[in-house]
Order: sequence, then structure tokens, then C-alpha cells
Amino acid sequence: MTPQRIAIGAGESESVVWLGRGLLADAGSKLVSPSGRFLLVSSKAAREPVDVLRRALGGRLFLDLEIEDSEETKTLDASAAIADRALEAGVRRDDAFVAAGGGVVTDVAGFAAAIVLRGVPWNAVPTTVAGMADAAIGGKTGVDHPLGKNLLGAFHPPRTVLVDPAAAATLPDRDYRSGLVEAAKAVWIRDARLSQRFEELLDAILSRDEGALLEVVSGAVQVKAAIVSSDLREAGDRRLLNFGHTLGHAFEAAGGYRELRHGEAVAWGIAGALVLSRERAGLPAGDASRILSLLARLGPFPEPARSEEELRALLARDKKATSRGIAGVLLERIGRARVEEAIPEGEWLAAAAAASIPVSGSGNQP
Amino acid sequence: MTPQRIAIGAGESESVVWLGRGLLADAGSKLVSPSGRFLLVSSKAAREPVDVLRRALGGRLFLDLEIEDSEETKTLDASAAIADRALEAGVRRDDAFVAAGGGVVTDVAGFAAAIVLRGVPWNAVPTTVAGMADAAIGGKTGVDHPLGKNLLGAFHPPRTVLVDPAAAATLPDRDYRSGLVEAAKAVWIRDARLSQRFEELLDAILSRDEGALLEVVSGAVQVKAAIVSSDLREAGDRRLLNFGHTLGHAFEAAGGYRELRHGEAVAWGIAGALVLSRERAGLPAGDASRILSLLARLGPFPEPARSEEELRALLARDKKATSRGIAGVLLERIGRARVEEAIPEGEWLAAAAAASIPVSGSGNQP
Repeated sequence: MTPQRIAIGAGESESVVWLGRGLLADAGSKLVSPSGRFLLVSSKAAREPVDVLRRALGGRLFLDLEIEDSEETKTLDASAAIADRALEAGVRRDDAFVAAGGGVVTDVAGFAAAIVLRGVPWNAVPTTVAGMADAAIGGKTGVDHPLGKNLLGAFHPPRTVLVDPAAAATLPDRDYRSGLVEAAKAVWIRDARLSQRFEELLDAILSRDEGALLEVVSGAVQVKAAIVSSDLREAGDRRLLNFGHTLGHAFEAAGGYRELRHGEAVAWGIAGALVLSRERAGLPAGDASRILSLLARLGPFPEPARSEEELRALLARDKKATSRGIAGVLLERIGRARVEEAIPEGEWLAAAAAASIPVSGSGNQP
Repeated sequence: MTPQRIAIGAGESESVVWLGRGLLADAGSKLVSPSGRFLLVSSKAAREPVDVLRRALGGRLFLDLEIEDSEETKTLDASAAIADRALEAGVRRDDAFVAAGGGVVTDVAGFAAAIVLRGVPWNAVPTTVAGMADAAIGGKTGVDHPLGKNLLGAFHPPRTVLVDPAAAATLPDRDYRSGLVEAAKAVWIRDARLSQRFEELLDAILSRDEGALLEVVSGAVQVKAAIVSSDLREAGDRRLLNFGHTLGHAFEAAGGYRELRHGEAVAWGIAGALVLSRERAGLPAGDASRILSLLARLGPFPEPARSEEELRALLARDKKATSRGIAGVLLERIGRARVEEAIPEGEWLAAAAAASIPVSGSGNQP
């Protein structure tokens, strides 16, 4: 099967996303390094797909680092340690990093690539569904800070993103399902037709059909690519991709980044955003219900902590807050979202309290 | 006097350099912050000009940090500490940093601005001649690493650079003179007419005439602005600005960053590059002699350490080295430079050994 090619941005900051089955073994011809040499930073949790990648790159690897792929290790120290090892290995400006793993690995290694020698090229090989559909796409890299998630980082798009659904074959079910929330999010804000297709394919996806997964991931990447290409620096439409993330980040932080997977927190954040979208953006009840049904089939997700006091403090630190207030993304209908610039804190807190995801019956609701 | 305005780059990454006497007191109307709020990071060594700046910004400052302005403090930890303080103070994406000091302060604080919230705007107020003519211009930020200078960093152009010659009024003579080497470097690679003007103005500059200093700094900024605008990412002509820096960086490192000021090391690096330029680029003897005479009037500079073994190891780690060899900038004549891609290490070492700056007699040679 011919792989699919999606370009994001243009010129110096162009990223090319390749999607297809069997691409891991073909990494040698798809990943980009001006010198021909690569530095691999990979997730310990993704040894099987990384071994395929390693064989594909062969003698062109001159550094081969494994790191943890968990939110606690997404620190400036982790990026600095990668930078140290790269400099010790004699990295040059025309060498390229390859980050293979989940969102933590691509964020941390991508940020190291952003700051080493003021920026060297890098490539992303996501091995999680969240990475394929979201984290590795769009050029954001970065690390967490004691005061919040992703507070340090850089826009540094990878030259290439290689999406092979087989890379997620050994992913635990909880990670696989929570990653699909990010794919669904991209679809819901932009593409009503694909939203319906997602519902049709979900049983096959959940039974790990790689073709079905690839179809949905490809749709999500196309949505994100189109939005990011028109707004690399998050001044306009790119903010739509934060649908579900204002409350999602607060839920995730309230659970100490241990209780909920990122995608699970975003699922709850979407449930909250649906409350606000019904009240403020005229979202039809039927659309809200279809979204909640699909979230239910992806779940059940652990209940988030909802202490009003804690959520209030976390919302006040939201990175998307400007001096004008806390902006939010609302859905007008499936396939159409808009940014509302200043939603009062009280409404966010009420939506957080009201957010609810039904329990799925058969796992196959209409 | 109307200040001079020089734009570098365009669009999102445009920098505007303002040059003029009295600009420090006018900082409130020249420095840019989308929110109107500023975070000041300033050099302890520049209290007098910084006090003028502080009064000009008044109640719009919500963080006021002083840091050391020495090469040993140009570390990732220093940038991370600034980022910590900014996040603790509640920095938002529409707030802006102001970095006031020498090249270390603008590099370290500019890099902090580059990574906080994936990049917030910043402004530079150089208080050294090297900062005005070179370090604060062009968008490079960064820190040193145990393995070498400026090995970590980002391209993150300041929105505004404010050049008021009065900011350098209290600068020690050694720093003042070594900073002029960077101004001269820019002139020599691009502007034969200004090179002659520099010779004419040098006595006035050395007696701290602010108008004369401003004229030469302005010329150097125009050269750098034109080059950088055509090559923001150092793929082409921007490399010409490294004239004198290949050996200069090696001399500086060999002295442990303590023995020589950056500009002094570059002066010796230029003397070495002149040897190579005579041999490989047909530089006329008269041009080399005029450059050495001006360096002599700026000096005398301390002798660099020239251990061949040490210089060889340092050159091998040069950031501008690619897999093709160590590139160098050669002068064909005053006002015209070119990059030579792969000069053998042996020639660099021979030039380092042969580099010589005459001792100035009256300090006023023709």
C-alpha cells in the first residue's frame, strides 16, 4: 500500500507526516537528516516497534538513548540530559534526532533538539495513539514545570512524522483507548462526516484493526495539519485544538498527573465543554449526546477529582489565560467549533461539576 | 534628535532597533509588550542606566530581577531560574521581558523568554558596546555548556532593541574597548567607507564621545541588520559575521573565559584570520595592515594562550564545523568577505601561532 503524505506548514518549518502500514521498516528512506546521521531517543515502553526502527536506521545511528515515557519525567532536566549526551557524542547542526515513543518522549526529545546548537532537525515516530493523532503533530515541544504542564518549551516542528499503526500494537488497552479521545477531539471540531465514520469504525478500532485505526488517525492528522498550517503560532484557529483541554488540564493536574491519563482528563474536559457549548453556543442536544456516547464506548474512565477550590487555582494558571480572561473552545455543532475569549471562572467551575459521561451498555451504541 | 529606526527581518519575527541619545528615558514609549506589562532582567554591573530604564517603565514592571553579567553565569540554570521567577510571578503569553545589560544578560534572559510558555516577547537594552553593536542584534539567544560556548539556545529575536550610547557611559575602559572590536568586525566584512570613518572617529570614541560612538555602532548595526534580514537562520551570509570567531572562540576557551574578554579573543581571532586571508583570499597587505593598526589602537590586548594541543581539541568542537570540515570566514579586501567551507585544521593552527597585533605608538596612527 502506498503511504499517505500530509505536509504541514511550508519552507523552513515544513513537517511531512507519512502514514501507512509497514512504514517503521522503511524509516531509513523516510526520516530526514542532512548529514545522514541520527540520534535516537526512544521510550523504554516501546521496545518492539523501536527495534524495528533501529534495524531500519542501522549504522546511521550514532547515539541510542532510552528514556521513561511518563509525565513525571517530562522535565527540563530530562531535555538537558538528552542535550548533554548529544553534545558529548559530537552532534553537529546537520545531524538529526529521532524521537520514538509517546507524547512525553516526542515532547522532551523534540525540545532537546530545539535547544541543542540553537536547533537541530528532528523526526518523530509516535508509538501511541495520542502521539500519532495529536502530540507529534504540529511542532509544539516542551516540558512540565512544578507550576504547570508544558510551561517551558519551543515551537520546533519535526521534519518528518512517521505514523505506522503497528507501532501501537503492543500499547496497553487503557493507553490505546485514552489516545483515541484526542483523535475524536480533532474530528469533532472540524469534520462531521469523519465523526460518523469514527462511530462506524470504533468496534474494529477497539479490536485493534490496524486499517481502521489508520483511517481515523489519518483523518485526525488531516484536521490538525490544516489548522496548524494556517496558524503555526497559535494566534487563531489553532486554539480550536484546545477543545476539552481547559478543564482537561485542570482535571489532570488535580489528579497529580497519576490518576488520569491525558486523554481521559480531556474526555472529562470535553464533557464539561459540552455543558458550556449547550448554554453558550447553541450545540444541539443530539450532537452532545452522540459525543458522549462515543466517549462512553471509549471508557469507562476513572472519575476526576473535582474540588472547586483546587480547580479554581488551576484554572487561574491556565496558559491560554490572557489578561482578558480564560478563553475556551465551544462546539456549535459536530464539525464546527469557535473560541470564546473570556468565559467567567464561575461558569467553568459549574461545568466541571456538571460534566458527566454515561456508562456504555453494549459498547456499541448507535 | 530624532532616533534612528532599523528593522530586522519581517512579520512575526521582526525586530526593530532604535538608536539615539536619550532613548533610555523614553523606553516606556519604545519597548513593546502586548499586555503593557514588563519583566525586567538586568545586570548588576549596569545599575545607573538600569535605574533610568526602571523609572521610564514605572508601574508597568511586575518583576525586577538583577543577575550577574559574567560568562560563568551564562548557564542553562540561570535561564531556568529566570523562567521560574517569571512563572511564579504569573507571566502570561502577552507579557514581555526586558533584558538590560551586556551580552550575557541579553543572551540568558532572551533564552528564558524563548522557552517560557513556548516563547514570550522580549526587548533588549544593551548597556555594553559589544551588546549594542553585536550581541543584542540578530535574534540569537543562548547559554554556555561545559563542552563549549553557546551550545544551547534558540533563535528568538527581541521585538525591540534600544541603543542609547549613554547606557555605556559607566562601562570600564577594558570592556568599552573590547566591545569596539565587534563593531569593527561588522564594518570590515561589509563596508569599506565606514571602515575609514571608524579610523577617523576612533580618538573621539575612545575619549567617550557619545555621538561618535553612536555613529559607528549605528553603522555596525546596519551591516548586521542587512545580513541577518537576508538570512535569519545562518544558512548563508550570516556566517560572515563569524569573521574572527573560529580562532576567537578557541582563544577564549583556552583562557577559561577569564583571561580574555570576548572582544579581545575576537581581536586575536581576526589577526589569525588575516593570515589565512592573505594566503587564501588575496587580501592586500595594505588592508591587513590597516586592520591591525586599528586593533592596535583598541589594545593592547592580553596575549592569548596558544597551546597547539589545546587549540586543536577546541577547534574540533567548533559549532560551525559540519561533517565537511571547519569552515572559516576570509577577507578578500576591507568591505568584502567570503566563507571558505573546509580549511584544514593545520592551517588554522599555523594561523593561530602566527597571529600578531602590533603595539600602537601614539594611539593615533594613520
